[in-house]
Amino acid sequence: MRAPAFTKRVPAGDNREREVCDHCGFVDYVNPRIVVGVVCTWEDQYLLCRRAIEPRRGFWTFPAGFLEQGESPEEGAAREAAEEAGADVIVGALIGIYSIPRIGQVQMMFEGQLRSPDVVAGEESLEVRLLPWSGIPWDDLAFLSVSAALRHHHQIRGRPEFPAFRVTLGG
Amino acid sequence: MRAPAFTKRVPAGDNREREVCDHCGFVDYVNPRIVVGVVCTWEDQYLLCRRAIEPRRGFWTFPAGFLEQGESPEEGAAREAAEEAGADVIVGALIGIYSIPRIGQVQMMFEGQLRSPDVVAGEESLEVRLLPWSGIPWDDLAFLSVSAALRHHHQIRGRPEFPAFRVTLGG
Repeated sequence: MRAPAFTKRVPAGDNREREVCDHCGFVDYVNPRIVVGVVCTWEDQYLLCRRAIEPRRGFWTFPAGFLEQGESPEEGAAREAAEEAGADVIVGALIGIYSIPRIGQVQMMFEGQLRSPDVVAGEESLEVRLLPWSGIPWDDLAFLSVSAALRHHHQIRGRPEFPAFRVTLGG
Repeated sequence: MRAPAFTKRVPAGDNREREVCDHCGFVDYVNPRIVVGVVCTWEDQYLLCRRAIEPRRGFWTFPAGFLEQGESPEEGAAREAAEEAGADVIVGALIGIYSIPRIGQVQMMFEGQLRSPDVVAGEESLEVRLLPWSGIPWDDLAFLSVSAALRHHHQIRGRPEFPAFRVTLGG
């Protein structure tokens, strides 16, 4: 096998440069990716996971990750809660959409109700905890979108209907 | 150049099969793609475009297309309106999120106010029109998500705040 050798070119029928492999002509269409996450609560407590993987290993987040093929956003959010925290969650309303154009991500964060407080660290978590609002480690959260979605969740909690927040993050 | 030769394998550190090129080891991570669209209105009229490209050439839609790297969803929706209909639009509230897991798409459709009624067919449109609600060609719309978002827009029109609709389409 030879290593891939990509060159920027405009493919036929397109109007912008893409990475095209010099060996095989494969066009690597790179589109923004979707991250889905869920702010899981049990009574007044929030489920947080300490990341076992980079980026931001050792920092805290609620369950979130890349949406996979064949999933709806709600299904992906529930899968991440199961994988990262062994959590069984009912995914609810959309809290907000956090777009980060610089890194090509659109993050969709949902409310979620845990069906039980039994949670356990998955492979991508060092530990998981149920914490009251006053116990959230704001200085040790992994990403800006995590703190934004937690604060938004706190604002809308208990409201039967609300418009999703829309935030563009980064420079 | 040799044609790419992809085989399904589980890359190191991953937990599901991906397409890996036998020639160069390139891993083609395929994630769902984001479509952004905007229901553009001018007074009581809706901007519709007749598609000049497949799929569904000859059928009607509002401006929509794949989000590109470096764009927020709102910027992508405004770009599509400019490209497909020469339209200058102020992108407003999120009408709804229409996910189609079978084809790996999450579609985000926005409200939009045209700054002027001057519109013109772009390269991907056969023609563009401003039509009253009663003139929308329901039987000749291009996609289910187009008719869904138009109906949802009609339901929420004039409301200052509303929760985004969330619909999963397809089997």
